Amino acid sequence: MLDKLGVTLPIVQAPMAGVSTPAMAAAVSNAGGLGSIGVGATDAAGARAMIAELQARTNRAFNVNLFVHATPVADPARETAWLESLAPAFAEFGATPPDRLTTIYKSFTDDPDMLTLLLEVKPRVVSLHFGLPSADIITALKQAGILLLATATSLDEARRIEAAGIDGIVAQGVEAGGHRGVFDPAGPDAGLSMATLTRLLVRETHLPVIAAGGIMDGTGIAAALALGAMATQLGTAFIACPESSADEGYRRALAGSGAYHTQLTSLISGRPARALANRFTALSETLAGHRTPDYPIAYDAGKALNAAAKAKGEFGFGAQWAGQGAPLARALPAAELITTLAEELAVAQRLTPFGVS
Amino acid sequence: MLDKLGVTLPIVQAPMAGVSTPAMAAAVSNAGGLGSIGVGATDAAGARAMIAELQARTNRAFNVNLFVHATPVADPARETAWLESLAPAFAEFGATPPDRLTTIYKSFTDDPDMLTLLLEVKPRVVSLHFGLPSADIITALKQAGILLLATATSLDEARRIEAAGIDGIVAQGVEAGGHRGVFDPAGPDAGLSMATLTRLLVRETHLPVIAAGGIMDGTGIAAALALGAMATQLGTAFIACPESSADEGYRRALAGSGAYHTQLTSLISGRPARALANRFTALSETLAGHRTPDYPIAYDAGKALNAAAKAKGEFGFGAQWAGQGAPLARALPAAELITTLAEELAVAQRLTPFGVS
Repeated sequence: MLDKLGVTLPIVQAPMAGVSTPAMAAAVSNAGGLGSIGVGATDAAGARAMIAELQARTNRAFNVNLFVHATPVADPARETAWLESLAPAFAEFGATPPDRLTTIYKSFTDDPDMLTLLLEVKPRVVSLHFGLPSADIITALKQAGILLLATATSLDEARRIEAAGIDGIVAQGVEAGGHRGVFDPAGPDAGLSMATLTRLLVRETHLPVIAAGGIMDGTGIAAALALGAMATQLGTAFIACPESSADEGYRRALAGSGAYHTQLTSLISGRPARALANRFTALSETLAGHRTPDYPIAYDAGKALNAAAKAKGEFGFGAQWAGQGAPLARALPAAELITTLAEELAVAQRLTPFGVS
Repeated sequence: MLDKLGVTLPIVQAPMAGVSTPAMAAAVSNAGGLGSIGVGATDAAGARAMIAELQARTNRAFNVNLFVHATPVADPARETAWLESLAPAFAEFGATPPDRLTTIYKSFTDDPDMLTLLLEVKPRVVSLHFGLPSADIITALKQAGILLLATATSLDEARRIEAAGIDGIVAQGVEAGGHRGVFDPAGPDAGLSMATLTRLLVRETHLPVIAAGGIMDGTGIAAALALGAMATQLGTAFIACPESSADEGYRRALAGSGAYHTQLTSLISGRPARALANRFTALSETLAGHRTPDYPIAYDAGKALNAAAKAKGEFGFGAQWAGQGAPLARALPAAELITTLAEELAVAQRLTPFGVS
């Protein structure tokens, strides 16, 4: 499977739309891992430019990640109510909420241009988050020779991924930063950890499992491999890399006390996502009970609030996604981080096994 | 440290008051692990009887676990309101809530007889849950030659444990079944997973760490050791053992679909605890917003509701504690489970390490 992924190390750099960059992905791929870009928050033209930059920087395999959420349903009354509930936060920065909210980017399911681009460019790997596209789309991608991965947060989702003919599962533990890949955000979520979910999927499915969530160093990779994962996916470990597009406030927050208190919240984007504790996540106390607009319509409001706050020097309303391992993040160049992870993994695996009598 | 614990295997059987038994603990200790009994829900006389039975069954080291929660504050108005909110559930079984609630067992902090017993019996290991007793009590236990462990769910709690002179930390991940060991249930809870918390405590404290939460087999133990834990604590793995006191309904639920959907709830006892999804955890939908009485006063009501339901053949209101690994539970005798875990651990650690180029 690692051969199929085109890597020499069992390390995937998580896509992280808005944080990862083609430069980061290229550095990771060139260093023996699988670099990823997230194109879920852009359109086919934007994706084409990112892929072109990536291809200019590496000849190695890379992964292109797509959001496959349900088509959002506009609901003007709900959106207006939501904007009203955010108005006091805007007012703190002398701003008012936008008049209306829009669907700021399409689901892959609703974006035939993106499919056309992928079939033309043929990245080695395409990974899917939030759900699965139609059987026709999956067949077209597979016939183009693309290896497909999809995120599961539960055994039920993993079984749907397996039944759809996907090649591998990203087992996303509750520790993971950013958006939880739950197929249905309105459904129950057992919040399985990386270790529990990985073990369950290794035992109960037949697909290769890539473990994600809270993995920050080589010992974490060794632990996931011990659980039967064939590789690992790390996101938060790369946020502080110089190649990331995290802004100054995000980097500062990652190195601060909020890193010890990451929180799952739907307030920022309309879907549950794990972020550093900041001014935005603190709104959960006053906004509990309010219903957000559909993802990503709510994100339009979240981004507007962040822009208003940032204009006044307040970085605490950013979508500062991070996983529970945030306190262990290192500000190394991506290639150096990959080399370090590989060395730590080798050390962890060389340690004398516990002597069972 | 394993020598100090008196074990040959890096496996602690979790105390699980109400589920584990002296027979279970003795079987585990005799098989090379550390057997535990939980005496937090009984008094000194009850603890004396349990320890006597345990000592009659093994000459090996064992662990006695205590609850060190804040002294509960009776609040008749709140308790009456809580009983009223539970009345419809009682009514379903032709029953009415009790007239009043009582503090059904003492915190170790408020139980000098328990301290006297421990200083007399001198178990090899005493473990503390929910907090720490006074410096005087800790000093007395240490001077009696007892090795002390305490549960942490965060780095902050771990630092308090280290500062108090405790000998080792049980790093309880959010996956763990039963009561979360949080010192202050009203405070924020970052819900760190076993892997994240273990890694954090191994790196940021100087104490030996025993990893707990979601560990069900030898690969899970291998993973925790890779993260730097010196041992592991398994609870849910032992619930289905014939030596456990889990009733028929609990065993059936553990083998059912609720095992895939464990849930943290404070409704049953007044403190957050992870249970199999059942009729009781489902009450969270209707009782959200209601404030429970203090732990363990609320548990008095929970136990009464379970008794009323059970009397009519409904087992779904039991305190069916279980961790996220519940679907991987095995109904083996405790000694056989220990042997199996040791074999699985040896296999997991013998697997050819991933070849880093």
